[in-house]
Amino acid sequence: MQRYFLPYDYDEQATFELRDSDFHHARNVMRMTVDDECFLVFQNQVAIKASIVSIEESAIIFSEVSKEEMQKEMPVNVTIACGYTKGDKLELVAQKGTELGMHELIGFPSKTSVVKWDEKKRVKKTQRLEKIVKEASEQSHRQVVPNIQLYSSFKELLEKAKDFTYCLVAYEESSKQGEKSQFVTTLSACKPGESLLIIFGPEGGLTPDEIKVLEEYDVKSCALGPRILRAETAPLYALSATSYQWELCGK
Amino acid sequence: MQRYFLPYDYDEQATFELRDSDFHHARNVMRMTVDDECFLVFQNQVAIKASIVSIEESAIIFSEVSKEEMQKEMPVNVTIACGYTKGDKLELVAQKGTELGMHELIGFPSKTSVVKWDEKKRVKKTQRLEKIVKEASEQSHRQVVPNIQLYSSFKELLEKAKDFTYCLVAYEESSKQGEKSQFVTTLSACKPGESLLIIFGPEGGLTPDEIKVLEEYDVKSCALGPRILRAETAPLYALSATSYQWELCGK
Repeated sequence: MQRYFLPYDYDEQATFELRDSDFHHARNVMRMTVDDECFLVFQNQVAIKASIVSIEESAIIFSEVSKEEMQKEMPVNVTIACGYTKGDKLELVAQKGTELGMHELIGFPSKTSVVKWDEKKRVKKTQRLEKIVKEASEQSHRQVVPNIQLYSSFKELLEKAKDFTYCLVAYEESSKQGEKSQFVTTLSACKPGESLLIIFGPEGGLTPDEIKVLEEYDVKSCALGPRILRAETAPLYALSATSYQWELCGK
Repeated sequence: MQRYFLPYDYDEQATFELRDSDFHHARNVMRMTVDDECFLVFQNQVAIKASIVSIEESAIIFSEVSKEEMQKEMPVNVTIACGYTKGDKLELVAQKGTELGMHELIGFPSKTSVVKWDEKKRVKKTQRLEKIVKEASEQSHRQVVPNIQLYSSFKELLEKAKDFTYCLVAYEESSKQGEKSQFVTTLSACKPGESLLIIFGPEGGLTPDEIKVLEEYDVKSCALGPRILRAETAPLYALSATSYQWELCGK
């Protein structure tokens, strides 16, 4: 069933209005008519099944049928931070990460990042990524659309790290040395309502210097299994494992 | 360090030869010279670090330096079977699945598959996928290159299912109904040396009839968390969770 995200909090009302691009999508692409149903999802993670009461010139009017009972969001908010990579890799992480339950996506410049994104490029890229995560949120039945932040410096990432309960960095050298326990220990320690930041390097990896600075900010190095994962694959591994641990094993 | 897969089993020898396309890659792309080192991986999962003794006209001659001690393969062989999908989705599963430890990749026609692949197309696609998994195996430090099988019928998949210790099918309806335990139960039951087949539908999903037939062949339906994953994302979730359970939690 189609899903639309509304830019305000849920509040008990008689009716709800769908406007702008979602209105056009519902009317012209989905060709929805009176009595058709869809999900409306609000900023405060409330989702309702709603039925069309009327179609006006610039809005569709819905009434609530029922609340969506099933929890679609992970119990701990997971933020993924990726060093800037070439090509469409960040787009892939945005789309798949949204399906896999990521709460927020951060991009940052790392010493080995081949691409340099100025402010104009970052604004354009942010818009593109926001479109991708919105569509992926609709398709995957999310109750929250992930937030996108593209930083201009590594320092911004370090400042941001202070906001989280736990911070990890996936480090290839840890994998090569057979490190196994840090990721499991952290996922086991997280409690509902807490937050976890997981940092990933670009194609060339993070430098030992960057890892050292991150450790000073209490970010712990971890391995994600014995194989070497590409920059865009590692975040998908981390999110899948997190969902498995928290949503299927139900720790 | 560069990795080459040799098409025969390891056997204690004084020297090893690299020929054909890998020879050209090592000599012309990597520009390797005498005393340079790389990993040589044999059909029977033995990997050795080897050093160049000499470069001949059509072969590079290596001597063994040491065995690779670290286990890079999952303790249980996981085969991923995907219904034929549009575009490059199977290529994505081939590449990322290889990084994530997949042992074998099967493609099969499902009732909702939009694409129809005749024998000529399947042969061409197999060659393409084999190239992708070989390159991904080198990059991710695998000790086995995943096998590729593209079937002409759903019946072939049913016959194949008999070869496995455990068989699962990821089913969207199970996710919607909040099923949580089957995947966890199966991963927990698997013992080293056993085999697991996980089946995924194409974009349109498997039909209730196909699920029913699979269940008759002792394939169990499972959900992979509360969100709806795309056809190409679900196999990556399953492999990541499997690696997490078996290689990081070390069950």
